[in-house]
Amino acid sequence: MHKTLVTGGAGFIGSHVARQLWAMKHHVVILDDLSGGLLENIPTGVDFVKGSILDHQLLAELFEKYQFDYVYHLAAYAAEGLSHFIKRFNYQNNLTGSVNLLNECIKHEVKCFVFVSSIAVYGSQQTPMTEDMIPQPEDPYGIAKYAFEMELKASKEMFGQDYIIFRPHNVYGENQNLNDPYRNVLGIFMNQILNGEPLTIYGDGSQTRAFSYIDEVAPVIARSVENPSAYGEIFNIGSDHTCSVRDLAQMIQVAFDSQATIHFLDERKEVHHAFCAHDKLKAYFAPVSSVSLQEGIVRMAGWAKKAERKASYKFDEIEIYKNLPSNWKLD
Amino acid sequence: MHKTLVTGGAGFIGSHVARQLWAMKHHVVILDDLSGGLLENIPTGVDFVKGSILDHQLLAELFEKYQFDYVYHLAAYAAEGLSHFIKRFNYQNNLTGSVNLLNECIKHEVKCFVFVSSIAVYGSQQTPMTEDMIPQPEDPYGIAKYAFEMELKASKEMFGQDYIIFRPHNVYGENQNLNDPYRNVLGIFMNQILNGEPLTIYGDGSQTRAFSYIDEVAPVIARSVENPSAYGEIFNIGSDHTCSVRDLAQMIQVAFDSQATIHFLDERKEVHHAFCAHDKLKAYFAPVSSVSLQEGIVRMAGWAKKAERKASYKFDEIEIYKNLPSNWKLD
Repeated sequence: MHKTLVTGGAGFIGSHVARQLWAMKHHVVILDDLSGGLLENIPTGVDFVKGSILDHQLLAELFEKYQFDYVYHLAAYAAEGLSHFIKRFNYQNNLTGSVNLLNECIKHEVKCFVFVSSIAVYGSQQTPMTEDMIPQPEDPYGIAKYAFEMELKASKEMFGQDYIIFRPHNVYGENQNLNDPYRNVLGIFMNQILNGEPLTIYGDGSQTRAFSYIDEVAPVIARSVENPSAYGEIFNIGSDHTCSVRDLAQMIQVAFDSQATIHFLDERKEVHHAFCAHDKLKAYFAPVSSVSLQEGIVRMAGWAKKAERKASYKFDEIEIYKNLPSNWKLD
Repeated sequence: MHKTLVTGGAGFIGSHVARQLWAMKHHVVILDDLSGGLLENIPTGVDFVKGSILDHQLLAELFEKYQFDYVYHLAAYAAEGLSHFIKRFNYQNNLTGSVNLLNECIKHEVKCFVFVSSIAVYGSQQTPMTEDMIPQPEDPYGIAKYAFEMELKASKEMFGQDYIIFRPHNVYGENQNLNDPYRNVLGIFMNQILNGEPLTIYGDGSQTRAFSYIDEVAPVIARSVENPSAYGEIFNIGSDHTCSVRDLAQMIQVAFDSQATIHFLDERKEVHHAFCAHDKLKAYFAPVSSVSLQEGIVRMAGWAKKAERKASYKFDEIEIYKNLPSNWKLD
C-alpha cells in the first residue's frame, strides 16, 4: 500500500485530491494547519495531523514515522492579490515551507513530489500560456510558486528527486472557502449573496478567466504519479473555456435566484485575460469528463446553500498598508 | 546629508561600498550580523549596528530612527555551491531577509534600493550573458537572488519603489573572507597556501571565470544612486577578462612564491564558463580605472599575508548530507 502525504489536505483542492487518493487505496496522511482549511473537509479514512510545513521538526518526525512513497504539496496561502501586502508571510509559507518539505523528500527518497503550482507563474505574457514559455511572474505569490518550481528542477539535477508540477487556474467547487474575502471569486460571490450583500467586482468585470470545476482537476493530479513519463514535467490544468467576471456574476445570480446588485470597485493590478493551453496535459493523461460552468455552478451552489456559515475572515498580519484596497483593511 | 543603510557592510563587498559612501559624505549605517563579516572590515566614520535582516522588528526601529534615503543591500550568504545543501537557510537569509528590508523601504519611501544580486541568476545560458536574457538560475542561491529581483520589479509596479540591481561576478580583493571553505576561490587558494596545504580544484580546472578586482566594482555601486536614469535597471558588473581556475592557481602560487601542489577533486555541478557582457554598465556609468588580474592578486596577497589568521569555518547547519562534497563535511 502506497503511503502518501497530502499537505493542505483540509483545504479546497487538497481535500479532493486526498479523497481521490484514498479511493485509489493509498494510505493517506493529511498535514494541515487549518489556517485556511476546515476539519469538515477532511475525507473519511485518512490520517490527519494538525501542523504546519514551517515546522521542520514535525516534518522530520512524520517522514521518519511514515516513510512516504509520494508527497502531494497543496499547502499554500493562495491570495494572489493580497500577496503584495504580505510579502514576508507569502515567501515563508509558499517557499520556505515548501523547501522544508522538499528537504525531507530528498532525505527519505520519496518517489515523486507532486507540486500544485499556479498559472500565476506566467505573469501577463501572451495567451494562450504554454508550458514551454519561460515564466515571468509579476506578484509575490507567483514569484514564490515559480521559485519553488525552479527549486524542484535543481533538486532533480542534484539529488535525482522526481517531481510533477501542475499549474491549475481558477478552480472552483465544493469545499471552496466561502469566508475568505481575498480569493476565489466564485466563493466570494456566493458568500456575498448568502449574506445579502452586493457582489463586488474590481474594474468593469471584463477580465476573463477559464473557471475550472474541481472534478476536472483533482482526479488528474491524484493519478499523475502512476505515469512516470510525466516525472520532471510541468502541466497546465483546468478548463479551456473562458468567461468574464461580469458574466460569471450573472450566472451565479441565476443559480441563487438572487437580485443582488453589483458593486464595481477600482480596478486592481491583475492579469486581464488569463488563459492557457492544455495540449500537453491531454497528451500525457487520460481525459476526465468535463463539466460545464453552468453545471458546476449549480453543484457548488447546492453545497454552498447547506454549508455552515462563517464570519468573513480578514487577514490580521498585513505588512504594508500603502495602496491596499480599502475593502481589504481590517474594520 | 544623505542617510544610507548598508546591510552586510562588515562583509567583503559591503565594507568597500560603505567606505566609498562615507567618502561621498553620506551618513552611513552598517547593519551586519557578523556571521560572515568581520568587525575589522568596518570602515572608520560609519555607524555600526549588529543585527540580522531576519529581525524585522529591529529593521522597523532602524528605519524609524534614521529615515534612510538610500539602502544598499549586500547582506547575503553567498556560498552558491553549498546552497543545495542548506536550502532553508538560503531562502530565509537571501530572500525572506531581503523582503523584510524591502517592506521597510516601501513604508518609509526610501529613494532607491540598491540590490547586489549575482551572475548566478543566469544559470548555464549562452555566453556572454546580457541583461536582456530572461534568467534561468539553476541552484538555490541563484533562485533566491532572482526571486528577489522579480520582487523588486513587482514592488516598483505596485508601490513605486525605485531600485538598481547589480549582478557582480567573481569579485576578489582585500577584506575577502579567507577562512570560508565554501566560497571565493581566490580566498580559498590564498588560505590554503598560508596554511601550507595543497590547492583544491573541482574537476580539471578548465572552468573559466572573469575575476574582478573590488576597486572595479565597489565605486560604481556606491555612486549609482546619483544616476536616476539607472533606476529600475539591471547591470552586470565585473571584469571582461576570463581566466581558468587552473591558471588562477598558478598566478597565486607565483604571487606567494609557493610550491604548493594542486589537488584535483571530483567535478561538481557548476556553470563551466561564466562570462557576461558589460556594455550596458559602460553606457550608464563613468568608467573606473581597470586593474589587471596580476596586479589585483599582488595587492590582495599583500593584504592576505598580514591579515589575522583564523580557523577554517565550517557551516554547522547542513540540511542535506546526500551528495555533499566530502571536504565540506564537518570533521
